[in-house]
Amino acid sequence: MSKIGVSYYSRSGNTQKMAEFVSQRVKEEGVEVELKRIEDTTLEDLLAWDGIIVGSPTYYGGAAAPVKDLFDRSVKYHGRLEGKVGGAFASSANIGGGNETTIVSILQMMLIHGMIVQGSSQGDHYGPVSIEKPDERVRVQCKALGKKIARLVKKLA
Amino acid sequence: MSKIGVSYYSRSGNTQKMAEFVSQRVKEEGVEVELKRIEDTTLEDLLAWDGIIVGSPTYYGGAAAPVKDLFDRSVKYHGRLEGKVGGAFASSANIGGGNETTIVSILQMMLIHGMIVQGSSQGDHYGPVSIEKPDERVRVQCKALGKKIARLVKKLA
Amino acid sequence: MSKIGVSYYSRSGNTQKMAEFVSQRVKEEGVEVELKRIEDTTLEDLLAWDGIIVGSPTYYGGAAAPVKDLFDRSVKYHGRLEGKVGGAFASSANIGGGNETTIVSILQMMLIHGMIVQGSSQGDHYGPVSIEKPDERVRVQCKALGKKIARLVKKLA
Amino acid sequence: MSKIGVSYYSRSGNTQKMAEFVSQRVKEEGVEVELKRIEDTTLEDLLAWDGIIVGSPTYYGGAAAPVKDLFDRSVKYHGRLEGKVGGAFASSANIGGGNETTIVSILQMMLIHGMIVQGSSQGDHYGPVSIEKPDERVRVQCKALGKKIARLVKKLA
Repeated sequence: MSKIGVSYYSRSGNTQKMAEFVSQRVKEEGVEVELKRIEDTTLEDLLAWDGIIVGSPTYYGGAAAPVKDLFDRSVKYHGRLEGKVGGAFASSANIGGGNETTIVSILQMMLIHGMIVQGSSQGDHYGPVSIEKPDERVRVQCKALGKKIARLVKKLA
Repeated sequence: MSKIGVSYYSRSGNTQKMAEFVSQRVKEEGVEVELKRIEDTTLEDLLAWDGIIVGSPTYYGGAAAPVKDLFDRSVKYHGRLEGKVGGAFASSANIGGGNETTIVSILQMMLIHGMIVQGSSQGDHYGPVSIEKPDERVRVQCKALGKKIARLVKKLA
Repeated sequence: MSKIGVSYYSRSGNTQKMAEFVSQRVKEEGVEVELKRIEDTTLEDLLAWDGIIVGSPTYYGGAAAPVKDLFDRSVKYHGRLEGKVGGAFASSANIGGGNETTIVSILQMMLIHGMIVQGSSQGDHYGPVSIEKPDERVRVQCKALGKKIARLVKKLA
Repeated sequence: MSKIGVSYYSRSGNTQKMAEFVSQRVKEEGVEVELKRIEDTTLEDLLAWDGIIVGSPTYYGGAAAPVKDLFDRSVKYHGRLEGKVGGAFASSANIGGGNETTIVSILQMMLIHGMIVQGSSQGDHYGPVSIEKPDERVRVQCKALGKKIARLVKKLA
């Protein structure tokens, strides 16, 4: 059975809330899901998951350093994440505050692992973006991400 | 005397409105400003301007093709824009809709010309972003861009 | 039966050569392939293809304007490319010359269409890059892209 | 008198070599230079320097986590780096390996601080890129960066 991990870094709770929305929707697709803080995510988790969804606040237009650090250390298994499915989401303090570049930077890390990512023709194209506290719009975007990744993982299983 | 050009592509009028806010603020700094549609902007305009500010709607995460086409043709004067000051802004239909990547793509074109660009520690960091019709927040951001570019052009004159 | 289109813009012949390598390898996977210049690629081609691979020279850190123009016009079918597979490659005059940002900008256009893209853990991570005339290294990278996209299209069929 | 800091992260020595080339050329412009490892760079250094040049190896298409961590912590002085001059360079294992996106991600961090960055119309447009050990081409690019940043810092002083 397929398994998807939702790994996030959160200090204000905003990114955590987004992670919860995403993982709930993954579960509704009948796919096993693990919701973990980045700090608790191991390199072996990355190996075990068929889909990896990563969330981060927007720090200087990129993922928080602990997210980057996890990916830097994942070089230990470089090549072994090839073909897994990835997705990303970000929270930020304001519109135009670097949230898109944060998501794109996470997707780039995944592409360099040889992973598969999918955009969205509706709503937040690269991945869900929350400006401050997640509202109803963000909830819908996060649910859409969870559904999309879960379905792609099942299709590729 | 220094001269700044504000060149924009607009179909809905949203990007044009932003261009007007930017150029008004440039003028208030005592710098001559030319406000032109991309279609009316010549390669010689780019040579003549000390500062070049470009605005575009967000089409598939980048500047509209006519904006890209102007830059592609600017290779005729490649090397001669070195040291000029640049800035960019974008309008888009929704948050997370590609507006940041649009602005960054315009700044990259300018960097490849050897131009100088400046971000902002407040508000829209890479350049002003409007979601749909420019509101008061966007007006403030556009004014800030006009002021910043005008002051940098004067400082470097 | 699945069909993949390789659409490219080329003036020097370098990007065309890359396109030929890519399409040959797609064919070797038993997938039908259409090799077309961007100028000859129609919006209906995009609809008809299960996989879309786009190549461009590096012009100011992004795809050539005719490539951008095709994507801008593809808004006519926005939403209908959702779930198709995409890939990109670029030629450029020099290392650090904007080739990666060109490829990423094409992948972003595809993500905004809701398309699926895959990176590579070996070699050119985002997509094949040629510095000047394609050499043996580039041939290998282009072949790898053709193989990867063809297999992903077959898997998702 | 103006002062420029060249701060780098290096494990193989390649990025360090690039940092040395850059800092030598800054010195030749008659500008004081401090060459520091990222691990030894303090937030107060960032405040004290008029120009900040940052080098990193290419790890998953972005700066190494210790570089990102320094910028994340620099939020303590957010707003106070406004108007400083920035530059970036990167080493990587291969062409198309994420070096450009690494440099762009560093420039984005600087823009979000309100810093001023300049591209180059010749050679490596966003900043110097080394593929493996720095060769003569890279030495020239690094020297060009040191010269450019030093002159811009002097002009803005």
